[in-house]
Amino acid sequence: MLIIGELINASRKPVAQAIREQDGAAIAGIAAMQHACGAGYIDVNAGVFADAEADHLAWLVQTVQQATGAPCCIDSPSPAAIEAALAVHQGTAMINSISLEEKRCDAILPVIAGTDLKVIALCMSDDGMPETVDQRMAIADRLVNRLVGANVPVDNIYVDPLVQPVATNSAYGTAFLNTIETIMAQFPGIHTVCGLSNISYGLPERKLLNQCFVVMAVLKGLDAAIINPTDKRMVAHIAAAEALAGRDNYCAGYLSAFRAGKLELS
Amino acid sequence: MLIIGELINASRKPVAQAIREQDGAAIAGIAAMQHACGAGYIDVNAGVFADAEADHLAWLVQTVQQATGAPCCIDSPSPAAIEAALAVHQGTAMINSISLEEKRCDAILPVIAGTDLKVIALCMSDDGMPETVDQRMAIADRLVNRLVGANVPVDNIYVDPLVQPVATNSAYGTAFLNTIETIMAQFPGIHTVCGLSNISYGLPERKLLNQCFVVMAVLKGLDAAIINPTDKRMVAHIAAAEALAGRDNYCAGYLSAFRAGKLELS
Repeated sequence: MLIIGELINASRKPVAQAIREQDGAAIAGIAAMQHACGAGYIDVNAGVFADAEADHLAWLVQTVQQATGAPCCIDSPSPAAIEAALAVHQGTAMINSISLEEKRCDAILPVIAGTDLKVIALCMSDDGMPETVDQRMAIADRLVNRLVGANVPVDNIYVDPLVQPVATNSAYGTAFLNTIETIMAQFPGIHTVCGLSNISYGLPERKLLNQCFVVMAVLKGLDAAIINPTDKRMVAHIAAAEALAGRDNYCAGYLSAFRAGKLELS
Repeated sequence: MLIIGELINASRKPVAQAIREQDGAAIAGIAAMQHACGAGYIDVNAGVFADAEADHLAWLVQTVQQATGAPCCIDSPSPAAIEAALAVHQGTAMINSISLEEKRCDAILPVIAGTDLKVIALCMSDDGMPETVDQRMAIADRLVNRLVGANVPVDNIYVDPLVQPVATNSAYGTAFLNTIETIMAQFPGIHTVCGLSNISYGLPERKLLNQCFVVMAVLKGLDAAIINPTDKRMVAHIAAAEALAGRDNYCAGYLSAFRAGKLELS
């Protein structure tokens, strides 16, 4: 499972403050902590800063990479901000995200076309948020074909079927999960990714729900997740789920997580 | 989800001692605690007592039912012990268990035939423990047909595909889970049940694995489980899984578990 660390997001107050004050040590600390907890990519988001987004995003990339050497997941809908971040990024970045919304797609696709960038492809179109598996698959199909047509290798595409709150509709959990399964079956070599926390919106004990939902998603084939990697119980659930789903030969990953102290839950 | 409380089992030392001393208060206490935690059936097992098993099992049934009014899951391979227990049981008992092992099947089937007893049907034959989905389904198919042929309604049958340790073979988890899904699809109205803890045999942090595995099993359709209902985290995982799997309209069960304090995890 590829873990994308979600904590460096300017919508979180301490992060916004660190960006505003150009407090590199604070950002480096959050980056290093997530990297040590197993994040393969560090998400960077400076979306709240509007005009200064491009500069701030580039500074975040440099600060994170100096601290960790890890690649970044560049989280912006703005091609200008993405390009500023890419200009200073070392190694293979991930772009978060493209969708089938025409404006967004037309703007971001040229940045990605023919590169080795990885990209998160949201199952969203101008028709709004899909609800059923079929609606999600119709979007996924068009979006993946468009990316492949722009010479983006399937192996670099991470489809996010978009989680919606199960409190709103009891079928939203299984619609998401069955989309994961269908995508993984229909496009060999592709990846699936998601942010989880929307699933539990409006319900109590959200961490419990998020942890249980990631277990189900791993069973269905999810192979990347945008999470808080310092949430030990979440990371432990992922390790356990991979072993139980037969995705961890000889339970080697689970046992090494145990030896590293990652399964010691209070 | 039907929860069958597993704690009154004479293989556990305090239970064996309470049986030996005919300490009804101790047994009543364990029964009441499990019932309060949501167990719909209370498993009773006096297997270690050999010659005295029938008497002890009947005493356990009376003691449990006086304390709780709940039905018992009568856990014995001995028809004589089961009949002694049934003679004093009030309401509809569950028999744990029948299998396709010829001796066991021939002995237990007459006790169940034409009654309204519920029965756990183990996917086990004289050929030994099945490993694949196909092997499990071949046994399930023959056993269910045999029970239905003996006038046992499908709705009274709880098939247990038998969990084997994932540490032994990475495919054992998914073989079990896919059997659950296939049984629920193939025999409309039937139930599936299991004891979970074998899945984690030989691995560290077994509770974490058991909790994650029940979440996966609920997604696949498991609708009964033999567990320790006083394990709050396990019960919370089941409640969360049912909501996420779309089996809990309006998340009503999850919310009522929350209001009852069952989701407050330390």
